[in-house]
Amino acid sequence: MKRTGRSQPSGPADAAGPSISAANLAKLVDGTLQGNARALVSGIASLTEAGPDDASFISSNHYLPQLRSTKAGVVIVRKRVRLPANHPGTTIVVDDADLAVARVLEFFAPPVPHPLAGIDESARVAPSANLGDGVAIGPFVSVGERVRIGARCRIHAGVAIGDDTVIGDDCVLFPNVVVRERITIGARVVIHAGSVIGSDGFGYRWDGRRHAKVPQIGTVIIEDDVEIGSCVCIDRAKFSVTRIGTGTKIDNLVQIAHNVTIGPHCIIVGQVGLAGSSKLGTGVVLGGGVGVRDHVSLGDGVMVGARSAVAHDIPPQSTVTGLPAIPQRQFLREQAAQRRLPELIVQMRAMQDEIEKLKARLKD
Amino acid sequence: MKRTGRSQPSGPADAAGPSISAANLAKLVDGTLQGNARALVSGIASLTEAGPDDASFISSNHYLPQLRSTKAGVVIVRKRVRLPANHPGTTIVVDDADLAVARVLEFFAPPVPHPLAGIDESARVAPSANLGDGVAIGPFVSVGERVRIGARCRIHAGVAIGDDTVIGDDCVLFPNVVVRERITIGARVVIHAGSVIGSDGFGYRWDGRRHAKVPQIGTVIIEDDVEIGSCVCIDRAKFSVTRIGTGTKIDNLVQIAHNVTIGPHCIIVGQVGLAGSSKLGTGVVLGGGVGVRDHVSLGDGVMVGARSAVAHDIPPQSTVTGLPAIPQRQFLREQAAQRRLPELIVQMRAMQDEIEKLKARLKD
Amino acid sequence: MKRTGRSQPSGPADAAGPSISAANLAKLVDGTLQGNARALVSGIASLTEAGPDDASFISSNHYLPQLRSTKAGVVIVRKRVRLPANHPGTTIVVDDADLAVARVLEFFAPPVPHPLAGIDESARVAPSANLGDGVAIGPFVSVGERVRIGARCRIHAGVAIGDDTVIGDDCVLFPNVVVRERITIGARVVIHAGSVIGSDGFGYRWDGRRHAKVPQIGTVIIEDDVEIGSCVCIDRAKFSVTRIGTGTKIDNLVQIAHNVTIGPHCIIVGQVGLAGSSKLGTGVVLGGGVGVRDHVSLGDGVMVGARSAVAHDIPPQSTVTGLPAIPQRQFLREQAAQRRLPELIVQMRAMQDEIEKLKARLKD
Repeated sequence: MKRTGRSQPSGPADAAGPSISAANLAKLVDGTLQGNARALVSGIASLTEAGPDDASFISSNHYLPQLRSTKAGVVIVRKRVRLPANHPGTTIVVDDADLAVARVLEFFAPPVPHPLAGIDESARVAPSANLGDGVAIGPFVSVGERVRIGARCRIHAGVAIGDDTVIGDDCVLFPNVVVRERITIGARVVIHAGSVIGSDGFGYRWDGRRHAKVPQIGTVIIEDDVEIGSCVCIDRAKFSVTRIGTGTKIDNLVQIAHNVTIGPHCIIVGQVGLAGSSKLGTGVVLGGGVGVRDHVSLGDGVMVGARSAVAHDIPPQSTVTGLPAIPQRQFLREQAAQRRLPELIVQMRAMQDEIEKLKARLKD
Repeated sequence: MKRTGRSQPSGPADAAGPSISAANLAKLVDGTLQGNARALVSGIASLTEAGPDDASFISSNHYLPQLRSTKAGVVIVRKRVRLPANHPGTTIVVDDADLAVARVLEFFAPPVPHPLAGIDESARVAPSANLGDGVAIGPFVSVGERVRIGARCRIHAGVAIGDDTVIGDDCVLFPNVVVRERITIGARVVIHAGSVIGSDGFGYRWDGRRHAKVPQIGTVIIEDDVEIGSCVCIDRAKFSVTRIGTGTKIDNLVQIAHNVTIGPHCIIVGQVGLAGSSKLGTGVVLGGGVGVRDHVSLGDGVMVGARSAVAHDIPPQSTVTGLPAIPQRQFLREQAAQRRLPELIVQMRAMQDEIEKLKARLKD
Repeated sequence: MKRTGRSQPSGPADAAGPSISAANLAKLVDGTLQGNARALVSGIASLTEAGPDDASFISSNHYLPQLRSTKAGVVIVRKRVRLPANHPGTTIVVDDADLAVARVLEFFAPPVPHPLAGIDESARVAPSANLGDGVAIGPFVSVGERVRIGARCRIHAGVAIGDDTVIGDDCVLFPNVVVRERITIGARVVIHAGSVIGSDGFGYRWDGRRHAKVPQIGTVIIEDDVEIGSCVCIDRAKFSVTRIGTGTKIDNLVQIAHNVTIGPHCIIVGQVGLAGSSKLGTGVVLGGGVGVRDHVSLGDGVMVGARSAVAHDIPPQSTVTGLPAIPQRQFLREQAAQRRLPELIVQMRAMQDEIEKLKARLKD
């Protein structure tokens, strides 16, 4: 089934998108409407940027001044915000503003363009590869021998998939992603553009005159419902497996070294680096730019502040920060002390003077 | 206009490049010539590496020893350098050595090879795409539906451009760049190889059993004259816009999260990470590896030292450094104090001893 | 020699790989066998994951509990491990467990699939390019004018190589690597997927109204036996050369700015950033995420702890750590002091009280 068409028709860019009445919006977000039930909105914007055709939202009293001057047609208001009694605009009061905004975004979200089902005529798919029903293979894609791609996967332009790799149903690989040979990817996995899965782990051994390469013969397993950002590198294991647990979400430019194990439902923010054989439990959250030393374990529910470096095992449910990461409370105490350090030195000098004076007096 | 040729003829690698006489070089850099006006140079090199056919330069007295032994045919000398009275070589004295070197580099710069105007026969351009005059589309490029590409843009091999994206005149996209759908790029924008513009922002909401994706329905606007390095990731906004201001320059491996706003003429050095909704004013300079926390604002002209983490708003024209970033002067004071800390502890112990002795004496 | 086949036949994924008897394994790793010489193993795994068909290994007494319960068919034991006298399993005692494991990995390593020798029919190779014997050019590869590619190089899908670039014998460029024009790469160099070699250095000059680009007319030289990870960026020099010394190994997501010089046999771990004109001697080791300031030199054999920032020249054979990096011993002393800082402040307050009391008494 060769074809030349490229992507799903999503209509011209300037076509009117969906719109919704305030009454239906209130239903959608499970909120209480006050004002013009018939007001129509066709987008969402911040209070300062919204026009009469937009919905907006307020989740903190901090933004009440912006609420007063907003032109938004409808404003979703978090219950705890102290809305002025005489507020003139149309409002929808909700318990959970984040959830409400997510639902509105889902309503307005334009379809993401994907290659059409079928194999683009420029693509290079090995004869022994096995593609599920409705798979879409975009232009300039190469698919290796014995690769299995699950039903309805959408493989964008320029993706390269190595021999013997297995990909589950309903995955999306955005342009120029590289998945090397013998990798296993679960169902509903999304990998954003330019990421590389399954390069060799970084392993060498000094043999007296050069760094001899230690073969990296293991693999990578990415479990179901993982989402991986752009330009992320996940290396194959030295032997055994580098594993990304089900439902884990990884931001851009993250480095995941060989034999790392990431548990389910973790959140790994941009530019994190996980060194070899480090281990994350369930639901771990790593802030942006965090580094984790090799062979270090982080227990379930651990949270690590942005730009911290984790050098030792961290017990479950702890919140740590710093270089190296220590309990958040201790970190804040040390940081406050650090701020006072220059003044402390002055103070010590004064104390020393006083001691000298006391000594001099006692000599009298 | 299909074609099979690949790049502009730029002549064989070993062909003679341009050369220039010392007299003309002096004119080019607005300097004062001393020595052999007819000396010909055909390149530029450092004092230690230059040969008789090279120009070189000296901008600090620190390098005077290298000047004495240089073989450079002509040396551009910054005015404040104390040139020995008896220096035998040909020199050109200038006020601004950086500017002079830039002009010399411009003179010697070989042309950058680009795909030829026209559409490479392997490229996949949607019929509804609109290409300006003289656009060059390289091999294995895919261009989505309703894309508009301005005049004279040069789109290198393997680039993927998503539906409804608009690119201004005279842009260069180097190989394997990915620009996703509905993105807006101004005129004269340069994007180096492997960068990804418009991936989804990193947004999830815990729904009790999994991180549910919050749709990222916004876009990215890159204004005129922006240059973006290699393997840079700029995410689309949750809603509204991630914006890069006119004339801003971004180095390699930088992460720019959803809804970031970068003002005009900023300098963002390699491996910087800007978290969601952070905001940079005009002319902000971020050193290599700097991190900026989400929703934090940096005023116009702020300078942040390399590897710092900015955790709070920074007023305009400040220079900050550290983890978290604090005013440079305070940082240096704290750092000096830090260096003295171990000695301080020893000193305190001594003071405590003296106090004990005083107490003992008083008891007598 | 156009062809349509894609990669070397490496056999079905579920085919039996190589297996080896305990006796032969002992020979392979130069060890002393105890137990069942005929035990056959066909893989290697950790003590906890290994089955009866696997070899495993133990290199520290720390793992003795895992040894007791392992199901591994053969265990390679580092000499200094105190193996229980009554250990029932088959063991091979070796002097150097790392070397032994490397040899076992080499034995079991499956062949890495590469494109077949010849030029894929989709590839775009300039007529003036010169390819050595047995070169393999994969699908969607573009090779510029006058490029020279040495014998037996394997260029994977989607690679783009710019005009006048020269690549030595036996190199491997994995998918979607970009090597820009006029770059020189030695023999046996491996570049993993998505890396970019030879983008413009980051150089601008404020001309009063904008950051004017300073042309980057230099090149990159990558010497023999270098290995470069995924999504690494190595910029071309402003003029002259950015150089990576022979045998140096570079991990993923590393940034190497213009005019950097890296000596032979260095180890550069993931996410390191080297600023412009920084210089590394022979055998330098940089931990993950290290930053080095521009124009800073690190002597031969310098080791820098992960996440450190090097702001000043470092003499040969030193081990440094911290922000900025200082000698390791001093760093540990300061860090210990830092830990005690909050307590110190309390202590100082107490001392001040005591001084006040002494003064009061003396007044009596």
